Amino acid sequence: MAIIPAGLEGWRLAIDLERERERLIPDTSVFTNPDVYREFGDSPTEAFVNFLEMASEAPQVRVYMPASVYEELKKMLRTTKIPPRARAIFRVKSPKKYEIQIPAFLLYELIDDLRQRINKGLRVAEEAVRASAHRNPDEIINALRRKYREALREGIVDSKEDIELILLALELDGLLLSADRGILALADKLGIRWIPPEEIRETLEGLIYAT
Amino acid sequence: MAIIPAGLEGWRLAIDLERERERLIPDTSVFTNPDVYREFGDSPTEAFVNFLEMASEAPQVRVYMPASVYEELKKMLRTTKIPPRARAIFRVKSPKKYEIQIPAFLLYELIDDLRQRINKGLRVAEEAVRASAHRNPDEIINALRRKYREALREGIVDSKEDIELILLALELDGLLLSADRGILALADKLGIRWIPPEEIRETLEGLIYAT
Repeated sequence: MAIIPAGLEGWRLAIDLERERERLIPDTSVFTNPDVYREFGDSPTEAFVNFLEMASEAPQVRVYMPASVYEELKKMLRTTKIPPRARAIFRVKSPKKYEIQIPAFLLYELIDDLRQRINKGLRVAEEAVRASAHRNPDEIINALRRKYREALREGIVDSKEDIELILLALELDGLLLSADRGILALADKLGIRWIPPEEIRETLEGLIYAT
Repeated sequence: MAIIPAGLEGWRLAIDLERERERLIPDTSVFTNPDVYREFGDSPTEAFVNFLEMASEAPQVRVYMPASVYEELKKMLRTTKIPPRARAIFRVKSPKKYEIQIPAFLLYELIDDLRQRINKGLRVAEEAVRASAHRNPDEIINALRRKYREALREGIVDSKEDIELILLALELDGLLLSADRGILALADKLGIRWIPPEEIRETLEGLIYAT
């Protein structure tokens, strides 16, 4: 328990501390999307280390990451050596997904969106079959993969890791950091706080400055 | 308010009445899947009318249908003339989807399942492109449509109407009637009461017999 000065001033201080605490929840895209990671370092690995170093300079900041996202990130970085100072503020934690409830209209919207995407995916596949009468199948398949991915996966949450990030932000009232449009769109619908990717570094600097 | 005899017997009666009330929530598949509708009539239209006639013979039974499902059903039937006696027990009602909450792990499972289905859909499309070097594209496309549908839509809820049925059953603590595996699987996960399609007629007869 924190020791708080007695009286009204003590309560004000306690409330301010609570209000200022920020739990940052970064997606892997923060360290793998070049537009974002270059704000923090020359490589994804350097960016991850520098991000954690900066975060540990702001005493009210904590960084949380679901286990699935951390595992994914580890595969993408050369090394995930956490800077010693950041050990105190970086935590791996998955959401309590068997306890959290979400509004049913989200499921409704998601299924409706997917229905349209699935239909579009079939049209893309049919076009590829028709085109392949005249052209090299390998070329056609490359184009098919790109178009199919666009139709079915872009701008929508499409992995367990995405959902875990969003649920963790919901559970912790965290601040979500991502360069993925699908994740940010769903987070916004759920009233989760988030930062546009191009403002992540400035926000972190602002949090350090505020202390 | 119902007039209830005083004392313990009165309470028992009130509890029994509440326990026995059944809100049936039939899917369109009950009236369009031949294996199910033939239990009720020679055509989907006849089956719908006979189903409602039977339901109205059991005084504790009500039949609810989301507006979207009713609209879909109307397109499939020659006429949707509700038998006069069934007017008192058949109600169109959509779920309160902006109020109902669902457990987050469902969203998590759904996204994980879809991810695998989407990958399978792409493999099906690639195989179709490779096969079309040697065969008639129209034949290939027919097979593609069937396989793609199997990969992406079978055994999973894939429409707004499906979700509305499930949410309505959740809201009303209803008894879900469907021949769709995807709907029944999701309903079961949510602890919704449901009847296997081949037992729908017998259950309705049982409800009439119980009165």
